[in-house]
Amino acid sequence: MDSGLRVSILGGGSAYTPGLIEGFIRQKNRIPVDRLTLMDIDAGKLRTVGALVTAMVSDAMPEAQVVLTEDRGEAIRNADFILCQIRVGGLAARHLDESIPMSMGLIGQETTGAGGFAMALRTIPVMVEIAKEIQETNPSAWLINYTNPTGLVAEAIKRAASIRHIAICDEPMILQEALAAFVGTQPEKLFLDYFGLNHLGFARKVFYHGSDVLPALRQKLQVMPKEQIEGVFGEETLKDPKARMELTNTLRIFSETGLLPSPYLQYYYYTGEILKHQQEVGKTRAYEVMEIEKELLLEYARVAAGGKRLEKSRGGRWHADMMIGLLAAIANDSREVFIVNVPNRGSLPELPYEKIIEVPAIVDSAGARPLAMGNMPLKVKGLIQSVAAYEELTVQAALSGSRSKALDALACHPLVGSRDTAWQLLDAYLDAHERYLPQFKR
Amino acid sequence: MDSGLRVSILGGGSAYTPGLIEGFIRQKNRIPVDRLTLMDIDAGKLRTVGALVTAMVSDAMPEAQVVLTEDRGEAIRNADFILCQIRVGGLAARHLDESIPMSMGLIGQETTGAGGFAMALRTIPVMVEIAKEIQETNPSAWLINYTNPTGLVAEAIKRAASIRHIAICDEPMILQEALAAFVGTQPEKLFLDYFGLNHLGFARKVFYHGSDVLPALRQKLQVMPKEQIEGVFGEETLKDPKARMELTNTLRIFSETGLLPSPYLQYYYYTGEILKHQQEVGKTRAYEVMEIEKELLLEYARVAAGGKRLEKSRGGRWHADMMIGLLAAIANDSREVFIVNVPNRGSLPELPYEKIIEVPAIVDSAGARPLAMGNMPLKVKGLIQSVAAYEELTVQAALSGSRSKALDALACHPLVGSRDTAWQLLDAYLDAHERYLPQFKR
Amino acid sequence: MDSGLRVSILGGGSAYTPGLIEGFIRQKNRIPVDRLTLMDIDAGKLRTVGALVTAMVSDAMPEAQVVLTEDRGEAIRNADFILCQIRVGGLAARHLDESIPMSMGLIGQETTGAGGFAMALRTIPVMVEIAKEIQETNPSAWLINYTNPTGLVAEAIKRAASIRHIAICDEPMILQEALAAFVGTQPEKLFLDYFGLNHLGFARKVFYHGSDVLPALRQKLQVMPKEQIEGVFGEETLKDPKARMELTNTLRIFSETGLLPSPYLQYYYYTGEILKHQQEVGKTRAYEVMEIEKELLLEYARVAAGGKRLEKSRGGRWHADMMIGLLAAIANDSREVFIVNVPNRGSLPELPYEKIIEVPAIVDSAGARPLAMGNMPLKVKGLIQSVAAYEELTVQAALSGSRSKALDALACHPLVGSRDTAWQLLDAYLDAHERYLPQFKR
Amino acid sequence: MDSGLRVSILGGGSAYTPGLIEGFIRQKNRIPVDRLTLMDIDAGKLRTVGALVTAMVSDAMPEAQVVLTEDRGEAIRNADFILCQIRVGGLAARHLDESIPMSMGLIGQETTGAGGFAMALRTIPVMVEIAKEIQETNPSAWLINYTNPTGLVAEAIKRAASIRHIAICDEPMILQEALAAFVGTQPEKLFLDYFGLNHLGFARKVFYHGSDVLPALRQKLQVMPKEQIEGVFGEETLKDPKARMELTNTLRIFSETGLLPSPYLQYYYYTGEILKHQQEVGKTRAYEVMEIEKELLLEYARVAAGGKRLEKSRGGRWHADMMIGLLAAIANDSREVFIVNVPNRGSLPELPYEKIIEVPAIVDSAGARPLAMGNMPLKVKGLIQSVAAYEELTVQAALSGSRSKALDALACHPLVGSRDTAWQLLDAYLDAHERYLPQFKR
Repeated sequence: MDSGLRVSILGGGSAYTPGLIEGFIRQKNRIPVDRLTLMDIDAGKLRTVGALVTAMVSDAMPEAQVVLTEDRGEAIRNADFILCQIRVGGLAARHLDESIPMSMGLIGQETTGAGGFAMALRTIPVMVEIAKEIQETNPSAWLINYTNPTGLVAEAIKRAASIRHIAICDEPMILQEALAAFVGTQPEKLFLDYFGLNHLGFARKVFYHGSDVLPALRQKLQVMPKEQIEGVFGEETLKDPKARMELTNTLRIFSETGLLPSPYLQYYYYTGEILKHQQEVGKTRAYEVMEIEKELLLEYARVAAGGKRLEKSRGGRWHADMMIGLLAAIANDSREVFIVNVPNRGSLPELPYEKIIEVPAIVDSAGARPLAMGNMPLKVKGLIQSVAAYEELTVQAALSGSRSKALDALACHPLVGSRDTAWQLLDAYLDAHERYLPQFKR
Repeated sequence: MDSGLRVSILGGGSAYTPGLIEGFIRQKNRIPVDRLTLMDIDAGKLRTVGALVTAMVSDAMPEAQVVLTEDRGEAIRNADFILCQIRVGGLAARHLDESIPMSMGLIGQETTGAGGFAMALRTIPVMVEIAKEIQETNPSAWLINYTNPTGLVAEAIKRAASIRHIAICDEPMILQEALAAFVGTQPEKLFLDYFGLNHLGFARKVFYHGSDVLPALRQKLQVMPKEQIEGVFGEETLKDPKARMELTNTLRIFSETGLLPSPYLQYYYYTGEILKHQQEVGKTRAYEVMEIEKELLLEYARVAAGGKRLEKSRGGRWHADMMIGLLAAIANDSREVFIVNVPNRGSLPELPYEKIIEVPAIVDSAGARPLAMGNMPLKVKGLIQSVAAYEELTVQAALSGSRSKALDALACHPLVGSRDTAWQLLDAYLDAHERYLPQFKR
Repeated sequence: MDSGLRVSILGGGSAYTPGLIEGFIRQKNRIPVDRLTLMDIDAGKLRTVGALVTAMVSDAMPEAQVVLTEDRGEAIRNADFILCQIRVGGLAARHLDESIPMSMGLIGQETTGAGGFAMALRTIPVMVEIAKEIQETNPSAWLINYTNPTGLVAEAIKRAASIRHIAICDEPMILQEALAAFVGTQPEKLFLDYFGLNHLGFARKVFYHGSDVLPALRQKLQVMPKEQIEGVFGEETLKDPKARMELTNTLRIFSETGLLPSPYLQYYYYTGEILKHQQEVGKTRAYEVMEIEKELLLEYARVAAGGKRLEKSRGGRWHADMMIGLLAAIANDSREVFIVNVPNRGSLPELPYEKIIEVPAIVDSAGARPLAMGNMPLKVKGLIQSVAAYEELTVQAALSGSRSKALDALACHPLVGSRDTAWQLLDAYLDAHERYLPQFKR
Repeated sequence: MDSGLRVSILGGGSAYTPGLIEGFIRQKNRIPVDRLTLMDIDAGKLRTVGALVTAMVSDAMPEAQVVLTEDRGEAIRNADFILCQIRVGGLAARHLDESIPMSMGLIGQETTGAGGFAMALRTIPVMVEIAKEIQETNPSAWLINYTNPTGLVAEAIKRAASIRHIAICDEPMILQEALAAFVGTQPEKLFLDYFGLNHLGFARKVFYHGSDVLPALRQKLQVMPKEQIEGVFGEETLKDPKARMELTNTLRIFSETGLLPSPYLQYYYYTGEILKHQQEVGKTRAYEVMEIEKELLLEYARVAAGGKRLEKSRGGRWHADMMIGLLAAIANDSREVFIVNVPNRGSLPELPYEKIIEVPAIVDSAGARPLAMGNMPLKVKGLIQSVAAYEELTVQAALSGSRSKALDALACHPLVGSRDTAWQLLDAYLDAHERYLPQFKR
């Protein structure tokens, strides 16, 4: 790189932004930044988060200019990399995404559950608009998207625009970090033989110095005291019943199948138990996050006003490190392996050739090229194929505004199941989110 | 054919046998029979049904000899065609297959529901034994199997033995008959562009004189009064709430998707409603069938003892006609189209090459050769791929006696869903059916 | 059928027409004809052949009206079936197709050899025009095409128009007739497990009463005296050195590989020998055919003028019978098996899904539906895949007029081989056929 | 790595060995060697080359022990890496491989030409024996094979043994070096979108800083003076008519197709010209190499005897660098991209799933994992599929000793073409190489 990069963050007012900026600061030698544009449609959050970010950057990375803007076009035009972390309809819409299925006895999760469907319908039109704007006004820029539901959004962008684009999710990286902790090494020393779709992936083997460490790890975890296991994930996990349940379920799946799953797999495998838990909790995750965000914004404001160092933020090291590592691999043409969401092209021969999948890929200045991951184990193949079909239908529905496709999509969803429920749910969603779903207006 | 055929019926004591014999009598010119062997391990039923069959045959087809035997080897050795309609564990086992999932809030259907899993574990070892005996003692004979779960049994036989074998189910034929009634023609005038697995198939198009009649039928059914529709299926349907529900659900699926489904699809698409219905009924289908059979055997005994003509039997014309039509196509080398269960070989490219599928095939003396049916509609592809994976795992479990495979299989089943439930169900089944599952003995 | 059919023959002035008409007369009960339109752009041939046909029909099938026309539109509009047997550029162009490669030491055959490439370039634009005219003016008509190169023409029509269309070739039927003669049965009693492309197909198994007769036939032919073998094909074969060579080569391939090939396979397998033979003969097949045609037209004129019965014609029973059998299967919705050229759709999984292939298909009023023929034997798979790629490129070149695609296509042709030769050949062809290749005009 | 590696070279007496050792010396910091075993069955060459190597190593890498042995078992047992560069039958056999087809007017090249077939029949049994010995006596060792025909040998080893194995060829590396020279960068800065089989591969795109440089290079080469182009390849190329022809042909293919081919492609694309050239040269390449080797061994002896530095050797930097780079990537678990020969697993979906292919792969301590390279351009797909079938048949023939498979294989070879020639060639080869082909003994 001749000079520093220009990075724009769409949805820059998010509570995740400061954590990400910390990452840029940590890695400023590897990937120097010249201009950092935060763009958000929520002027209030942009102001609060922007003030903190401006302070952080002027302190630790003074050569970089921070720009705050509500003008998406400006953010898009002045960037080498456009990071995208928007939330169409905000947490209020997420609350509906989650609570509507919950009220019908269904999993109300925002990506894997039926909530992901509603989120896709709302998010895809906006993301396609963004992609088209990039194509027209700044075609050489890279869009790095982690707006959820990531896989579906990537599928839609691929169909609607022709831009330089990688979709990522920090889940596989978190898995890799946790594995490294158990093995006692650095994450980058491991290679995950990982395959699937976003939030529906599995590590089949994990190589460390050429050997698969999963069989030994499986045995070890079966006898290790629960507290010790949780300890690896830090005190926070020990205190959070949701995190503990997720961990327990994930390890049960690993123990029974020998495949290390994305934590989202629990929604498919322990549906009943999770429904029960959600009913006990009695409030949506959106609601919890609203409370967390409120506190965080106060904290951000405190620090921006000159208070002592930031005591909490969202996203954490992992999220920032994966994101910035990916940027660096592209910017520096360094050909590194990342688990990303990319078009299949034969990597998983049992899924359609053009489907967006989540697998290890080589990333360099030319983008991401998937490794050939081969056939999938029979015990998870059907689920993955099934969700792949749901995803394709949902993208078609979101792009076309066809109610019939939307119904077909929901009826395909393994966590919805029945067409009756699908009808009910679709009606409720179209009603609740009407203003965000112009494509479905009759 | 130079001379008449020798036909053996394994499970010949079944209440379905007289209906089948009526078919042979109806079609004796097309396919003359020399020897008819009924074999059953239930001496009582064999005696009752055998007496009736002997009377029927001596009256209408005197050139044919009727043999009753409890010796399977004899029945296998002396046959050109071996029809197989056994029920391992009888209706008592079926009652358990159905009631155990019902008690856990799951669909207790004997093929599509979890019951089909238990039935497969019990039935596959016996059917494989039969197939191997045919291979050794009468390799030129044809095994025509309609013992349920047909697709899974065929999958197991294909792996374990090398015999001449076709697996059939009368469902598609019933569909074709019903369609013909609506169109106002003979069933054989229609061609069903049909694809899927046994009890999980769809007609995508139905050709009559070269045109697809489904779009017009769909419109017509949407306005036709319900009673008139039911009328096509006869008075019996009108009186049977289960049949009416099945019909209603099937037509809803057709109306919404444009695909005409096997009636078993309702279990996937209207799960909640059916569960509710089953709880209201409060007894298993096995229990109902026991009562029906009891009456039928009395009726059979009455007629065999010289009473006037048979007033009821099971299976009906359709079942017998498909079966005997198939036999005739093989025996007469007449190259006709039947929807049967055969190895895929590319007919449905999105399913494994060796998988047993249910599609139209050309049947002649060389057996059944599937037509190339092409890619499946996205809206049902995922479900079919998912159940295909479940079936492969179940067959592996049934052949190997591996609990871990059995668990993986159940956990893949779209109507089971969660691994917790899968564990519970597996334990309950292995316990309840212990004497029929030697392969799982530790 | 309510009334007789209207059949139009494009290229009706061909010497093959009277043989075809004889077929219609032979089968008039199975497939009654009301109107028979012969269309040709060669007024002289149309007059001669038309006079004979008019005489034949008025004699044997007086209810049918014969129409002679030079107006293609008229022939297309007034037809239920449009048979197409045109030859763009006539035999003069064929002479160039064959002689140009011959002069470069290459096989000069009109379909399998490089000649087929030139023929495709000339024929495809005209056939696409015809297909589009059918689509616009008579979309419910069936186009039955046997204009060579049949497979390539079908490929082009499929891409360019959406009409009811089957492409056929009498080769597989001739094979089936010959086999029936050896087995001592009727052709329709056999089922050929046949796969490949037009003029590049193989029978892997041939079933008669459920058993494969090829192994025994192979042994028999290895010991049978050559004369006796040739005798099966009639005196004509015995007298024709070209036919004898073809037969010998075909049987050698069968003997060595166990696969019964289309006779055109000799061009790939005995290239050197055939080149030598062609050089000895010293004239093109086109030239020979010109002489044959001249004599035939004299003979036709003689008979039309009231002379005694026709003593020779072209095409023979086989050709007519396959053609009319196919028409009858469509018209009568009789669902029979024919080996035809149709889109793959998974029938041969190792070829592209949309490729036109030659396999057994069920033919009825809805058209032709291929059987799933499965994977190909390794020993011929590569050749077939290779020619399939050549065909796709040739069609692309013919439709687009791209010299670069044309060169790529020729360079892929197994009988051309080198790019240098391909260049030379392409230049020579584009030059020689300039008036027929407007799409390549710079 | 805790300590240095133990490296054994089978065929260590080869004239290529000193060049390889130079590589080890150059890269001793990256990959330290403890023990270097040269094994050869030719005691004379082992002595000469061994003396030189011993001198080189004691001078530049004194910590490494050099062992010379004729005992293959010893070399296999005492190694972490077994490099294999044997030549079964030596150059005398190669001379026959090349001259026999030449005498029949066919390309006599030792891998791509018919010679590769004979070489495979001789080499595969020995290589399988070696692989089995590794499996039994030193299963954790890596076999790095570049014994030709590399792809076929890899295919055979994969079927016959289960060892850690990568097959490589320096061709793609040479291509990459040449490209780097034209672009003006280091080879490792480029990423080749490369696909195919060994000696039958193409670069479709070549990425440098994220952009494909091929289009510009293609234009540049079309106007660059020939001498200047040749200059990039050094004086040697300018002096060697064979090398100049190869370069010219390779650039012609690139210019016409836009695909940058392996230089071996010229044998398929300019067959006639090369045959002519070979006839003019009048001696086989084997013969030329014999002369080169004779000189080299004298030179090696001179230097070993204390003479001044080596003035010539074989293989050059490229060969050694690729080899040692690959070893280092495995030993250091460094996850780098190399173009190697590995099982397909979906990387090229149009070739069989288990076929050995040549594509970019990630190499680390777990071996080589191919990237998903996707569908191939139509213009080369057929040739590659065709040769893939030939390769599979040849491996089956070499393993089984079946004459019929051998004939099928040769008849599939695009450079043999006719079955007659195939018979003749097979007979000649089986005769000439009888002592090396025990598997074909009747």
